[in-house]
Amino acid sequence: MKKLLVFGVGLIGGSLALALKAANAGWHVTGIGRTGDSLQEALTLGIIDEAATDIATALKGVDVIMIATPVAQIGPILQRIAPHLEDKTIITDAGSTKADIANEAHKLLGNAASRFVPGHPIAGAEKSGPSAAQATLYKNKNVVLTPDGRTDPGAVQIVRELWLSTGAIVREMSPEGHDTIFAAVSHLPHLLAFALVDELAARPDAEQFFEFAASGFRDFTRIAGSSPEMWRDISLANRTALLQELDRYQSALNQLRQSLEHGDAASLQATFERASQARNAWAQHSPSALWKN
Amino acid sequence: MKKLLVFGVGLIGGSLALALKAANAGWHVTGIGRTGDSLQEALTLGIIDEAATDIATALKGVDVIMIATPVAQIGPILQRIAPHLEDKTIITDAGSTKADIANEAHKLLGNAASRFVPGHPIAGAEKSGPSAAQATLYKNKNVVLTPDGRTDPGAVQIVRELWLSTGAIVREMSPEGHDTIFAAVSHLPHLLAFALVDELAARPDAEQFFEFAASGFRDFTRIAGSSPEMWRDISLANRTALLQELDRYQSALNQLRQSLEHGDAASLQATFERASQARNAWAQHSPSALWKN
Repeated sequence: MKKLLVFGVGLIGGSLALALKAANAGWHVTGIGRTGDSLQEALTLGIIDEAATDIATALKGVDVIMIATPVAQIGPILQRIAPHLEDKTIITDAGSTKADIANEAHKLLGNAASRFVPGHPIAGAEKSGPSAAQATLYKNKNVVLTPDGRTDPGAVQIVRELWLSTGAIVREMSPEGHDTIFAAVSHLPHLLAFALVDELAARPDAEQFFEFAASGFRDFTRIAGSSPEMWRDISLANRTALLQELDRYQSALNQLRQSLEHGDAASLQATFERASQARNAWAQHSPSALWKN
Repeated sequence: MKKLLVFGVGLIGGSLALALKAANAGWHVTGIGRTGDSLQEALTLGIIDEAATDIATALKGVDVIMIATPVAQIGPILQRIAPHLEDKTIITDAGSTKADIANEAHKLLGNAASRFVPGHPIAGAEKSGPSAAQATLYKNKNVVLTPDGRTDPGAVQIVRELWLSTGAIVREMSPEGHDTIFAAVSHLPHLLAFALVDELAARPDAEQFFEFAASGFRDFTRIAGSSPEMWRDISLANRTALLQELDRYQSALNQLRQSLEHGDAASLQATFERASQARNAWAQHSPSALWKN
């Protein structure tokens, strides 16, 4: 049996453990954490084979360490594991931003940095915690790995195979390419939705507005119900790319405002048409569109 | 039997007809339109009792006219019905904007303008056309009526009762109040989603971005798949209120941008927290949230 040590046995780490178990992929999974509650729950649910709290002991003989915690905790964990890493141990993560984490790994892990393979599984759910974990979460979902020239190809291969056993599609790109794409299709939309709901909620007559909001508003603002701490940390970790995407968006929005102000029907329609065609084409063809329109 | 004449026998008008039939509310429903296809479909589906194409004939003995067409067609229809209106006939509509339509009615209907009751049922669906119509569409949904000081209270009462028979909750407010609320909770979100998708789609490497978009993007951009013509017309019809809401939003977004640029974690978290609390409180309590989270 190969040994996998998982920091964070919630939706992301727990689903990985369950998927490996379901695939009979030959992994013994240990969960580790500071508080016992999640670990105990993960044990009870059969997600992990073993629970650990002491890092030095837990790192003995480990083949792969998966850090599946919120992004802000990844740096501190790298720092704590660094002194105890064995030569064979490969490290990977599941954080939503990559350039900052890759940089921290190079600073904190010394020689072992070549065995750190930054990763990001593109799968989420509205629920979190061990009870939300499911063996099929990653089936046909993209998992992005962002090794660079300094990363050991053998380490990349092992992390790739780990994810392939869960049914995921494994992709590779640079940390910066990853951060730009996710700033555009995920982090920026969150920022926009948070800003809209906060602006409405701050009004003295907010209740009247919310009272008449319907299904379009519900879908548009669903991501504004996400964890404030998690999105604070993602926004800050990916600040550079996110500011660039925000600039592009604000400039596009200004142009649309001009068209509206001038009553330019043709220009409004052209924008709406391009958007609606692109959105509907995407919804028909994207893998994530298949399981829920 | 009271006589209802419906312009537009698609989702909105067709669902009203079906709901009245299901409630045994004592209405004989005639559908009217220039092309025969939708009318024939509505007849075949049992949505309307009768189809008409000639306005002068169709208006004889009618108690209530419902104009359930796209907003851009409401003015032209008011103009065409004006010469043929009987003294007893009450007119109402189902357009998404109200101040502009109320103004047009006052210009176009002469004395009959006091019997025009502007209305807006807050119910939609992703599908359209007669086949999308359903008797239960309005059950527990808000229908907003926006009469003003010049509107005949008797006419308002009749339109109110018509909607109450469908199971709807009938609300009253000023046309301007209506337009501000819907600019904020519906028209602005559409504009924001259209702008985001168009900006992404215009990039040479757009495909790479869409490829990694996931469920958050799917929900956030669902309204960007809406009809470009319909939203062009709504945006222009509600331009004044929409520009005001856009101003407020752009200013809120600028503030958030400042917090991000300065790495102000506390301010980001405060915004995200207010938004997420407001969004989740709304999702738990709104009637529209009950049928689909």
